[in-house]
Amino acid sequence: MGRINKSVSTTKVTRNADGTFNFNKRADAVTAEEPLEIRLSGTTITTTMRTPGHDIELAHGFLHSEGMIKSAAEVTNARYCAGATGPDGQNTYNVLDVTPISTVRAPGLENLRLTVTNSACGICGSTSISQIMDKSHRPIEPLALDPGLILELPNILRDQQKQFKRTGGIHAAGVFESDGTLIVAREDIGRHNAADKVIGHLMLENTLDKPGRILVMSSRASFELVQKAIMAGFSALITVSAASSLAVDLAREAGLTLVAFARDNRFNLYSGELIEQ
Amino acid sequence: MGRINKSVSTTKVTRNADGTFNFNKRADAVTAEEPLEIRLSGTTITTTMRTPGHDIELAHGFLHSEGMIKSAAEVTNARYCAGATGPDGQNTYNVLDVTPISTVRAPGLENLRLTVTNSACGICGSTSISQIMDKSHRPIEPLALDPGLILELPNILRDQQKQFKRTGGIHAAGVFESDGTLIVAREDIGRHNAADKVIGHLMLENTLDKPGRILVMSSRASFELVQKAIMAGFSALITVSAASSLAVDLAREAGLTLVAFARDNRFNLYSGELIEQ
Repeated sequence: MGRINKSVSTTKVTRNADGTFNFNKRADAVTAEEPLEIRLSGTTITTTMRTPGHDIELAHGFLHSEGMIKSAAEVTNARYCAGATGPDGQNTYNVLDVTPISTVRAPGLENLRLTVTNSACGICGSTSISQIMDKSHRPIEPLALDPGLILELPNILRDQQKQFKRTGGIHAAGVFESDGTLIVAREDIGRHNAADKVIGHLMLENTLDKPGRILVMSSRASFELVQKAIMAGFSALITVSAASSLAVDLAREAGLTLVAFARDNRFNLYSGELIEQ
Repeated sequence: MGRINKSVSTTKVTRNADGTFNFNKRADAVTAEEPLEIRLSGTTITTTMRTPGHDIELAHGFLHSEGMIKSAAEVTNARYCAGATGPDGQNTYNVLDVTPISTVRAPGLENLRLTVTNSACGICGSTSISQIMDKSHRPIEPLALDPGLILELPNILRDQQKQFKRTGGIHAAGVFESDGTLIVAREDIGRHNAADKVIGHLMLENTLDKPGRILVMSSRASFELVQKAIMAGFSALITVSAASSLAVDLAREAGLTLVAFARDNRFNLYSGELIEQ
């Protein structure tokens, strides 16, 4: 779509060894960030700042991560809103309307996670974990990981990051078979969107039920990413940066293997088992 | 509060030069991530996953960034919900109720930004920028920056990042005077929360109106961060990582100086002026 990065003028400044500065005015590629409004039967579910591209996958993955749909078969139609035109009269391709089968209903606003949560005054990490565990997520098959494979997968993902090489500012998600075969990789300025895109891709090819898969992220491991991995039934989540306390707690509760800081010949295993050689 | 990081058991794995692995089971500090529910006169406005601490600042900064309040004088009371108890009966300190003066009203759900946006079908980057520019943000005083100062400020901020040194997984925001004097620095697992905390701090000390200040972030420059900087009337935003297309567009529209990739003796200037020596 030619909307994944944009060229902007910039002054690139470099400090030399002698303390002087070089100023170089030129065009620079930056990662595109545009709002995507996702509607379910006309009701706005969320607006996410994302990098355009693979929006249908993103919408499927998002609805799955939120527990609203379980498979692509529950969606009869997903299309850009025809009236979604910008100031120039062109379609913005920024509003996507998803029509589900009749048994799927848009939740009330009060039920949207991370938007307006339940009114329980005692919200805390345990409450958040309970809410996820109460949703019927896919079964997670325990998977003991080979340490060498753990260090190899982020490198394979990085080789796929075409936009990162151009702009230096975009996250990536990759799904691998347990033997390290790459299935799909997607980039997005938001790590959660990149994850939803790969999950949506597997839904659309109807293979999300295949067990033993590994999600690799260029980012840190937040609670939200662990949630998406669990809902999708992945066996492991490997991230290049840090894991949060709630990410560790939720991974352990759900039986998801969680690896963080997988870079520079080292990693931390917070949950799950390794194949120790 | 002792809730900023948590100790969890982990297996630290290192690959040696000969290809063998070391496995070291030990306790590791990870950054705490807990939900904070912010209420305005009892109505839930948002739930954000944040690192506990400086929650009053966070709530003030958030409400300011959203255009709901302009100063701390508009808040008569901000306290943790007394009934917000977890499974153990203890207060979770995760629900904060803000009581504003009578002229401030909680917005309807349909007006919450990034939650449910307006129903205009033509949502796009231009729409998003218009929505921000329509809000009465503080005046922005143009500030020409010294290149040497730009490279120094992220280092000063890094020296303040006590939690980052422990966990390697937390963002920081710092506000500086135009001469490089640090006013306040805050850490949070979410970059947007760190920004809201420093803005809230300035509100509570009633100095947010002072012009010419610089916001420095350990993160990338997203549309959302540029928005917060503009609402607060900062003159410049300096980030260590990349800027997005919409961040650049909004900074230029508002007259905010925007610097990204400020590290390793180089940076990119996307908006504003430099003092060229």
